[in-house]
Amino acid sequence: MRNETIKSDISDSACGYRRVLEIISSKWTVLVLHALDEGSKRYGEIGKRIEGVSQKMLTQTLRQLERDGLVKREVHPSVPPTVEYELTPLSETLMLHIRQFKQWTNEHYPHVQRAREEYDRMNEPD
Amino acid sequence: MRNETIKSDISDSACGYRRVLEIISSKWTVLVLHALDEGSKRYGEIGKRIEGVSQKMLTQTLRQLERDGLVKREVHPSVPPTVEYELTPLSETLMLHIRQFKQWTNEHYPHVQRAREEYDRMNEPD
Repeated sequence: MRNETIKSDISDSACGYRRVLEIISSKWTVLVLHALDEGSKRYGEIGKRIEGVSQKMLTQTLRQLERDGLVKREVHPSVPPTVEYELTPLSETLMLHIRQFKQWTNEHYPHVQRAREEYDRMNEPD
Repeated sequence: MRNETIKSDISDSACGYRRVLEIISSKWTVLVLHALDEGSKRYGEIGKRIEGVSQKMLTQTLRQLERDGLVKREVHPSVPPTVEYELTPLSETLMLHIRQFKQWTNEHYPHVQRAREEYDRMNEPD
């Protein structure tokens, strides 16, 4: 009975995790969220903040984030109308975790690299 | 000058983030870490805990995790020798964040789904 409980736990992890990955596994997604984490921005301003992003990719990424409720597109009724993008309360909660992951990487990536070098040395062909 | 500082910040994010993704973007990697988070296990025990993993994929995932210093492979000198896999202090720090991400998803994924439905309704062709 206890095994059954643990088993469904791991399936949950798989499912939940796959869902998080839908959102966070694109580099562009995370870079757009980081850019907006500095404050709301117009389309051109976001593009300037992210080196190497194509217009097509930026448009697609913003649309997907808007659809997921992670970015709000705000049209100001000026002449001509201006459009600004900003984080939502939902993506602000996500940013907390993305920042923590980034911090883990900054702190621990050198350990991963050292472990790889050590492993490769131990497993060299003679 | 201030813009320069922010700019390098975002490049850092890209780089750090790409590195985290190397580790966490595979579903099998995360499932193996979850399985070992329950305690150290033998190869066959890990396989039984993860539905649908092939022997080839499990071997490959364990080898990569060992190379990254995230899993320790312990050979006990019994007859015949037994091999156990366990988390390392390094992967224990990573598990904290993976668990938090999982919790974020459990709490917030319904909001993402609702946002998608709403977006699709608003953007239906007439």
